[in-house]
Amino acid sequence: MEFLVRQENRMPVMPVEEAARIKAAEREYAQQLRDRGILRRLWRVPGTRTAIGWYEADDATELHDVLSALPTFPWQTITVEALATHPQEQPLQRE
Amino acid sequence: MEFLVRQENRMPVMPVEEAARIKAAEREYAQQLRDRGILRRLWRVPGTRTAIGWYEADDATELHDVLSALPTFPWQTITVEALATHPQEQPLQRE
Amino acid sequence: MEFLVRQENRMPVMPVEEAARIKAAEREYAQQLRDRGILRRLWRVPGTRTAIGWYEADDATELHDVLSALPTFPWQTITVEALATHPQEQPLQRE
Amino acid sequence: MEFLVRQENRMPVMPVEEAARIKAAEREYAQQLRDRGILRRLWRVPGTRTAIGWYEADDATELHDVLSALPTFPWQTITVEALATHPQEQPLQRE
Amino acid sequence: MEFLVRQENRMPVMPVEEAARIKAAEREYAQQLRDRGILRRLWRVPGTRTAIGWYEADDATELHDVLSALPTFPWQTITVEALATHPQEQPLQRE
Amino acid sequence: MEFLVRQENRMPVMPVEEAARIKAAEREYAQQLRDRGILRRLWRVPGTRTAIGWYEADDATELHDVLSALPTFPWQTITVEALATHPQEQPLQRE
Amino acid sequence: MEFLVRQENRMPVMPVEEAARIKAAEREYAQQLRDRGILRRLWRVPGTRTAIGWYEADDATELHDVLSALPTFPWQTITVEALATHPQEQPLQRE
Amino acid sequence: MEFLVRQENRMPVMPVEEAARIKAAEREYAQQLRDRGILRRLWRVPGTRTAIGWYEADDATELHDVLSALPTFPWQTITVEALATHPQEQPLQRE
Amino acid sequence: MEFLVRQENRMPVMPVEEAARIKAAEREYAQQLRDRGILRRLWRVPGTRTAIGWYEADDATELHDVLSALPTFPWQTITVEALATHPQEQPLQRE
Amino acid sequence: MEFLVRQENRMPVMPVEEAARIKAAEREYAQQLRDRGILRRLWRVPGTRTAIGWYEADDATELHDVLSALPTFPWQTITVEALATHPQEQPLQRE
Repeated sequence: MEFLVRQENRMPVMPVEEAARIKAAEREYAQQLRDRGILRRLWRVPGTRTAIGWYEADDATELHDVLSALPTFPWQTITVEALATHPQEQPLQRE
Repeated sequence: MEFLVRQENRMPVMPVEEAARIKAAEREYAQQLRDRGILRRLWRVPGTRTAIGWYEADDATELHDVLSALPTFPWQTITVEALATHPQEQPLQRE
Repeated sequence: MEFLVRQENRMPVMPVEEAARIKAAEREYAQQLRDRGILRRLWRVPGTRTAIGWYEADDATELHDVLSALPTFPWQTITVEALATHPQEQPLQRE
Repeated sequence: MEFLVRQENRMPVMPVEEAARIKAAEREYAQQLRDRGILRRLWRVPGTRTAIGWYEADDATELHDVLSALPTFPWQTITVEALATHPQEQPLQRE
Repeated sequence: MEFLVRQENRMPVMPVEEAARIKAAEREYAQQLRDRGILRRLWRVPGTRTAIGWYEADDATELHDVLSALPTFPWQTITVEALATHPQEQPLQRE
Repeated sequence: MEFLVRQENRMPVMPVEEAARIKAAEREYAQQLRDRGILRRLWRVPGTRTAIGWYEADDATELHDVLSALPTFPWQTITVEALATHPQEQPLQRE
Repeated sequence: MEFLVRQENRMPVMPVEEAARIKAAEREYAQQLRDRGILRRLWRVPGTRTAIGWYEADDATELHDVLSALPTFPWQTITVEALATHPQEQPLQRE
Repeated sequence: MEFLVRQENRMPVMPVEEAARIKAAEREYAQQLRDRGILRRLWRVPGTRTAIGWYEADDATELHDVLSALPTFPWQTITVEALATHPQEQPLQRE
Repeated sequence: MEFLVRQENRMPVMPVEEAARIKAAEREYAQQLRDRGILRRLWRVPGTRTAIGWYEADDATELHDVLSALPTFPWQTITVEALATHPQEQPLQRE
Repeated sequence: MEFLVRQENRMPVMPVEEAARIKAAEREYAQQLRDRGILRRLWRVPGTRTAIGWYEADDATELHDVLSALPTFPWQTITVEALATHPQEQPLQRE
């Protein structure tokens, strides 16, 4: 099932190395999600630290487990929107 | 997967028999959804013609097909919220 | 009477043991509410620490007493929505 | 149980006698509700045709039945807020 | 003149005795307002520390003086709604 | 008592003479309110047909009677805000 | 440049053939946009007639020309959100 | 003085010649405003019939007169935001 | 030009003398603005520390300079609404 | 491509020299953006520390890079609105 996820990152100011460590862990974790076909695409809302992600997971429970494992999760304000396949794209479900 | 669905019904005034026919069809269709385990529970928002339904479907695409087949769908303003299983209720998924 | 209750948990960062103690107390308290037929169902809003609960209590005063006794109550932002029994479910009031 | 009910009346323009008939029926019905102890108080939001009512009913289901029997119900946009008894007024529940 | 007043109390965590002292002062002050016919009724919004009060004062200036003298005023977020007497209750103005 | 009143006028398209008649009646009525010291000042929200009025009336009930007698009342969406006298202007209450 | 576009379709009730003609034209036009790499993906918001589209165009002016040529444009309420490429996906710009 | 003006155009469907006549009148009128230095710039909100205009007028009263003379004014929903000159652009006030 | 200005004061708790000093400076400054015809009237929103001011300034730039010189400006959340002279009050512009 | 950017600056209180240094850096950086044709115009929302900017960049990604390099970026709450060229201004794209 597909989801549109808005992730507003409010990571506080912290020592540079700590911030870099978390950022690298986040990047690596995101790549794993791409490899598993869970994170399909990630965009940046310009002028902000908010990302919009196109995710695919079995259901909202798996999605929650995936999102709550983000290294930045403690500082994230996340809203999830369930997506149904559009009739025009029924055959195109999986590019 | 579970969903919380808010269904605001704005059925216009129409001939009494027509309205009764649609209402009966809606009642019958809802019962079918209960029998299929899709409609788990339906409440009324007091003072309104809005219902809140607890639904269970494979994914949002199946949910959309189910909702768009409601006899009152043309007059419904519907909002869908995806629900993840709460950690406290993991074992209770299916009563 | 039935209620839909949205519980947004903003528990601050605290020592691990303290957080675990509160979480365990919350889990135990929730189970007591289930046993008393007050907490009928609890879901997680994916990507958040917000729960949605289907509660049943004599009235809003009893519900308030129940909610304000939650171990996490000091950090909860709660909204309560009164639910009327839907005409379709009049006979099914108590599963 | 007590409720605060906001009733926004959007009765369309109609023949004067028809409007007067409905208004009289509404006034009479409201008086019955007062006599039954259901309608405790009714205020007008100044500059509008919106009323705010303090109601008391067994639960939201009874409240819904009462409100949906209002002669003006088809043109009302109603929001209901559940009220718990304030600790300061526990003994004053029933004036 | 009558007012509907929503009082969201965000009193921070403080030493137990201090909190109890303020709460007692608030209770006593509220009782004085009842005795003066200013505080007509007080309800609790379930699941929150918000109260809804039905007040009667000469005008908004007197109401402001009354509210700003609440011991908890520094931590209150208050919204005031002016109420007009409903035509149905013209004769019942003063119970 | 003073009020800030936002009056959004949605008068539909109608025969020119009818519209002119209502506009003249509104202008005349407004002048009467000025003469009675009830309408203190009226502004236009630029780009709209919305007016903001500074009114003074005994209470919200009198204000409602005044506003509901506006010739354009059937097409007005009105919001009323109660105003308290600012401490800095206590002596200036009546210019 | 990439955009997230929310398209709320409020096509009124019309003769079946007319509705079918417009729907077919819309489907064909959408396919052309896919072939031109402008419409990257289209989802359905479950329970509604709203679609969310991932579009790619030179700029907002080209996007407007594309959207305003939709056969259903006269009945669409559209909101457009500009998307920046996320640092994690810089190299993946074009799948 | 400078203003940012959002003009949402809800011109109903009308005979083609009538719509073309109004559109031409609007285009001509806008050009006059440019020539008078009142309309500094006009943009389109993509996917909509809403325009955002940067206007300069003596004050809000002149701006209102200018906007209410738009041929499409009867169908426009307009919001006006007053703009102050930014300290960085004090010398650049008039390009 | 006239403006309606909403000033939400969130001055933090501070030493009594410091708060009194700022309040006195604010009172004095406000009186200067009255003497210059800039501050025409100031009201209190009951139950809050928010003031609503009717201001008159050459334009929004002068208004900004006036408001940003308020001793409490660092703690103020201010919204400004431009006001056009109402046709009914054209001759009354300056009382 | 053109953008309307709302920049709400919440720079905390800091040592005077530090604040002056950042302000100077911001002024210098803004001038560079003007010289590059990226910052076309900047206005102040009166009574606030919010600026509204008219920007022009290749796309939202370039705009994000420009905005996130603002010395005040860590304290900015920014919203970006994509602008399409209005048909009336097609030929005037570049003044």
